[in-house]
Amino acid sequence: MKLTSIGYLGPKGTFTKLAVDATFNGEHKEAFKTIPECIDAVDKGEIDIGVVPLENAIEGTVQLTVDYLIHQVRIPVVGEIVVPIQQHLLVRSDIVQKESDIEEVHSHSHAIAQCHQYLHQNLHNAKIAFTSSTGKAAEIVSNSDQPIAAIGNRAAASEYGLEIMKENIHDYPNNHTRFLVLSHQPEKVKIKSEAKGDKTTLLITLPSDQAGALHQILSAFAWRKLNLSKIESRPTKTGLGNYFFIIDVNQAYDDVLLPGVKAELEALGCQVTILGSYSVYDIL
Amino acid sequence: MKLTSIGYLGPKGTFTKLAVDATFNGEHKEAFKTIPECIDAVDKGEIDIGVVPLENAIEGTVQLTVDYLIHQVRIPVVGEIVVPIQQHLLVRSDIVQKESDIEEVHSHSHAIAQCHQYLHQNLHNAKIAFTSSTGKAAEIVSNSDQPIAAIGNRAAASEYGLEIMKENIHDYPNNHTRFLVLSHQPEKVKIKSEAKGDKTTLLITLPSDQAGALHQILSAFAWRKLNLSKIESRPTKTGLGNYFFIIDVNQAYDDVLLPGVKAELEALGCQVTILGSYSVYDIL
Repeated sequence: MKLTSIGYLGPKGTFTKLAVDATFNGEHKEAFKTIPECIDAVDKGEIDIGVVPLENAIEGTVQLTVDYLIHQVRIPVVGEIVVPIQQHLLVRSDIVQKESDIEEVHSHSHAIAQCHQYLHQNLHNAKIAFTSSTGKAAEIVSNSDQPIAAIGNRAAASEYGLEIMKENIHDYPNNHTRFLVLSHQPEKVKIKSEAKGDKTTLLITLPSDQAGALHQILSAFAWRKLNLSKIESRPTKTGLGNYFFIIDVNQAYDDVLLPGVKAELEALGCQVTILGSYSVYDIL
Repeated sequence: MKLTSIGYLGPKGTFTKLAVDATFNGEHKEAFKTIPECIDAVDKGEIDIGVVPLENAIEGTVQLTVDYLIHQVRIPVVGEIVVPIQQHLLVRSDIVQKESDIEEVHSHSHAIAQCHQYLHQNLHNAKIAFTSSTGKAAEIVSNSDQPIAAIGNRAAASEYGLEIMKENIHDYPNNHTRFLVLSHQPEKVKIKSEAKGDKTTLLITLPSDQAGALHQILSAFAWRKLNLSKIESRPTKTGLGNYFFIIDVNQAYDDVLLPGVKAELEALGCQVTILGSYSVYDIL
């Protein structure tokens, strides 16, 4: 039997890899260099499933993923993975024994920024070196015989054989990142943890940029008592002043309520696209 | 007379630097390594003005800037700079004469992703190397005698003496980035271009996570015919299920309408904070 193949935004040791390892078992996993390359590979059938960041303060921005899914290819969202951001201080234990040994800290600029308070208070004299990813920083530390450290996650530590010298050095405890699971073959998506709920994501384009139009759109959800967990406006890129909205509803697409919303909005002249109806998985 | 000092998210040759150069004249300019460091320096009075990305597909994410402004320090937003994303292919003209000479392309992963189609069609055989910023990529190319290229903006080309071999290689023509101008001393902010309009940004926290609450909030804007140019929901980080909303209104804070919205929302139990009322500057 052919193994299911899962593509993700690489390199190894990033938060996307951590999300993939926590949710899928022994399938074939392949790292992609950019979000568009990963999405293209799913669309062309080169891989069965793709996992890309949607809201992620490290490897990617929601813009790139959302824009590519909306403007270039349409692949159903079949799941969402929510991962807490936990940054650790990673070292080679044969070289660094205590914090004060550390002369240089390597990481992605966003990870450095997320640990701003910790670095300021504990490693004030260490130099900062920026890398293209947290995984890359761990690789550099593992290959160096200098007293340096990386900031990265647990996956990076085990991938590159580094010791976690200090856990959870990030400034905000309740920070999460979201990843989308994309596939044309939802039957192949077998996630090992239990879903904590369902979500439907809609893309709504307004007929014109008028005051109160969004309010009118939300009425269609409000009077049905549908709870929205996220709403975001984004420019359509076809010109200035044209916006569309991405709305997450806290339930699966059903037979009555959501089709009712869709019909009502279309009658108002909106374009409505269902980007996906899917389960949400929390990684603790 | 002491020169006004402007801090920005560096290094040189990034899109933030381009925004700063296009809007400010000969003031003292200082690059900061991270968004929090730049914001802290404004707050402590070490610099007069700070410029940081708000929506930017390259150097930063809206999350980092918004989170830091909301949770750590409160500095008034005194202006917004809108810059089109224009990516160019940069080379040393003494080494590379034509596209087919190029063996390797260096840039930030987001810039590489933004030029996905171009690279696929024109530089399919070139290797890709990721750097921590587009400015860093330009620096690498300027210091190398190998046939390599960087993807970056016009500021990076002039900063590092590179030739623009091919202009506008990005996939989407209508992509823009937004930068915030932060200062405790708005009288020092002298922007050389003319403002194209005004904006007020509000931060609204809901009393509880209930269906239709957002709809109720938007009613306060809708019946006053106030046009919203952006709305985004963000977790408060004090726990799961708690959201606040960031809303941009297309006008300056006035004496009647916006104070009316604020009073009405507060009566409903919302917390309302005005993050700033400011002018918007377009860079062409």
